[in-house]
Amino acid sequence: MKGNLIIGQSGGPTMVINQSLVGIIKEASRHQEVQSIYGARHGILGMLTGDFINLRQLSDKKMKLIAATPSSALGTCRHKPDEKDCQKVFEVFTKHNIKYFFYIGGNDTAETCHIINEIAKKKGYELRIFHIPKTIDNDLLVNDFCPGYPSAARYVAMSFMGNDLDNQAIPGVKIDIVMGRHAGWLTAAAALARREKGDGPHLIYLPETPITIKKFVKDIDDMYARHGRCLVAASEGITGPGGKPLGESLTKQRDSHGNIRLSGSGALGDMLANYVEKHSRHKDMRVRTDTLGYAQRSFPGIASSVDARVAKMVGQEAVRYALKGDIDGSVAISRLSKQGKPVFETDLVELRRVARDAKEMPRKFINQAGNDVTASFIKYLQPLVGDLPEIGRL
Amino acid sequence: MKGNLIIGQSGGPTMVINQSLVGIIKEASRHQEVQSIYGARHGILGMLTGDFINLRQLSDKKMKLIAATPSSALGTCRHKPDEKDCQKVFEVFTKHNIKYFFYIGGNDTAETCHIINEIAKKKGYELRIFHIPKTIDNDLLVNDFCPGYPSAARYVAMSFMGNDLDNQAIPGVKIDIVMGRHAGWLTAAAALARREKGDGPHLIYLPETPITIKKFVKDIDDMYARHGRCLVAASEGITGPGGKPLGESLTKQRDSHGNIRLSGSGALGDMLANYVEKHSRHKDMRVRTDTLGYAQRSFPGIASSVDARVAKMVGQEAVRYALKGDIDGSVAISRLSKQGKPVFETDLVELRRVARDAKEMPRKFINQAGNDVTASFIKYLQPLVGDLPEIGRL
Repeated sequence: MKGNLIIGQSGGPTMVINQSLVGIIKEASRHQEVQSIYGARHGILGMLTGDFINLRQLSDKKMKLIAATPSSALGTCRHKPDEKDCQKVFEVFTKHNIKYFFYIGGNDTAETCHIINEIAKKKGYELRIFHIPKTIDNDLLVNDFCPGYPSAARYVAMSFMGNDLDNQAIPGVKIDIVMGRHAGWLTAAAALARREKGDGPHLIYLPETPITIKKFVKDIDDMYARHGRCLVAASEGITGPGGKPLGESLTKQRDSHGNIRLSGSGALGDMLANYVEKHSRHKDMRVRTDTLGYAQRSFPGIASSVDARVAKMVGQEAVRYALKGDIDGSVAISRLSKQGKPVFETDLVELRRVARDAKEMPRKFINQAGNDVTASFIKYLQPLVGDLPEIGRL
Repeated sequence: MKGNLIIGQSGGPTMVINQSLVGIIKEASRHQEVQSIYGARHGILGMLTGDFINLRQLSDKKMKLIAATPSSALGTCRHKPDEKDCQKVFEVFTKHNIKYFFYIGGNDTAETCHIINEIAKKKGYELRIFHIPKTIDNDLLVNDFCPGYPSAARYVAMSFMGNDLDNQAIPGVKIDIVMGRHAGWLTAAAALARREKGDGPHLIYLPETPITIKKFVKDIDDMYARHGRCLVAASEGITGPGGKPLGESLTKQRDSHGNIRLSGSGALGDMLANYVEKHSRHKDMRVRTDTLGYAQRSFPGIASSVDARVAKMVGQEAVRYALKGDIDGSVAISRLSKQGKPVFETDLVELRRVARDAKEMPRKFINQAGNDVTASFIKYLQPLVGDLPEIGRL
């Protein structure tokens, strides 16, 4: 089917989302059915207004540089389109003869694809529509992992390596807050920082395992008694009794998807640090906190090579599915070799299977006490993240 | 003079302080006058109790790894010794026949060296005592730069590169808080993130140039009007009218040197973001904030190669001064070639010249409006930091 192609990027940026963009452009350029290749500026917002960039004329050198650059080169958005928006998108698509639509993003993005797809079917508009997975949260269903996650995990692991060395040099309690509202995948990556017995993080708290603030203090006190120090990885989404976010009472701001805004604020870390310092059984125990920021998703120069490779692959594969005759779907990643260097392949799954719902950490990846990860999680994650800097010590 | 040698690390860790440690060990190992080479655990604290590590038997491979590892391998402290402590140190030194003392740290550390040196002279205790410069704050007098600073600057620049790409993808206002209580050197390094016209950071606020909160909001509003977004680099030590820290009212905790504790807390960033959002003339302007954490001083794998090289050199040179017959002093760094690849050499200066006082950013490095750096600052900093990751964009 001849026609024009459009690509959008949605949701939070990652270190490798531009790999997927370049993967789509490169593969699409090889097929005669694809006429113009457009990029929509700021995702659905650009599709509503026809704010497109021509992506046909990029040099290989430029594409290589863009692929290796963090953040979303097309711009992104967090806008959730309503029925009226979706109708408007079809007007723009019709006007520009868009027949291929590739949207890179998380579960909200898959849902947007699903909605647009349903309207297309009803209208009898011939549209090939594909969702390409991306999220540092690693919470998409069906997928072995989500592109963007291994690189963010790599940043988190490196950050905790440095923080643990720092905490060894000046012992005390350090609580680091990691992104991830509903799933603990990224926080759990802190565990990769450990090299030797006694290394931190000594405690890891995930949204999946509610804790009481009293247990939190007791865990830290116990670790401090054992190691003379304690490094804690806590998700921004850690939950208290009843599964309510511990941070919920600290902020009222929500984004247009109705999600609570917990990033970009040190409030949770400060609250936890102050509480622990006040209620610890150790006198003069020094408690500090850092809230890891946007660097988790956009720090340059440290992306995981597996992540980069697979992110590009899912872009390419999406185009292949579309040109092979598939109508719609989400490109899903599965891992073939469980030992050694991992090999990945893709399947095409129904859009609604990936839309909306989030994949939490399975119980087998979390320890009994709910304050650490298991060896099987490390086995899952390590091949995705790759080698970390070597550490020397006395 | 035959005798034993001791090394200590003090103050905040850096990415290259272990280069200085290894530089001392390697150079000391070449001289017969030096008998045992000890490392004091946690700086002066280890010297008070005789908590030493033998550093003679380290393999070259191990030393190379340690040198490249962030944080302080011997452990560090922020303890300011009093008269009684200093007397105690001499008892321990006498008992262990310490004749050479190398202390790596900032101006507080130089002051400790100065005090111990004065006592040594009074007592007639033959001690060769040398301060080796180290601080991410870059605020030591006399020195062209302080080892540890270029690597921290590199982290800050990379972080701002990522944050600016992120802010281009989802436009809004982002305020990032950078370490540096009294001097803006590290915050100013954010300027290296800029590649093209319009790139952030769009505003840089340093402790050296007091601002009113109203001017702060107006600057951001103006940049937002021009670029549709605004990335701000603000020092944790930014000052209001009268030179009082804007953050002073937010925390009461002080360290044993009497310094206000502003790190490890997102309070300043949150306060600024909330204030700007509330008082902006732009409706619905989205303001986020990150407070850069300990990663600034201990993130692994990204150290500046110039920094690593000079940090090692100052350690080696300190030993050479000591063995050549110099009695005491601080190793100071000067830059020879102003163009191209920088060449550095050292001088030995009096301890008290480096002790206590901090070097602020000179006026020529700050723009007229007090909200950015100048081209001459970039010229100063860029050769220290080295190449940053390349950026590709559409």
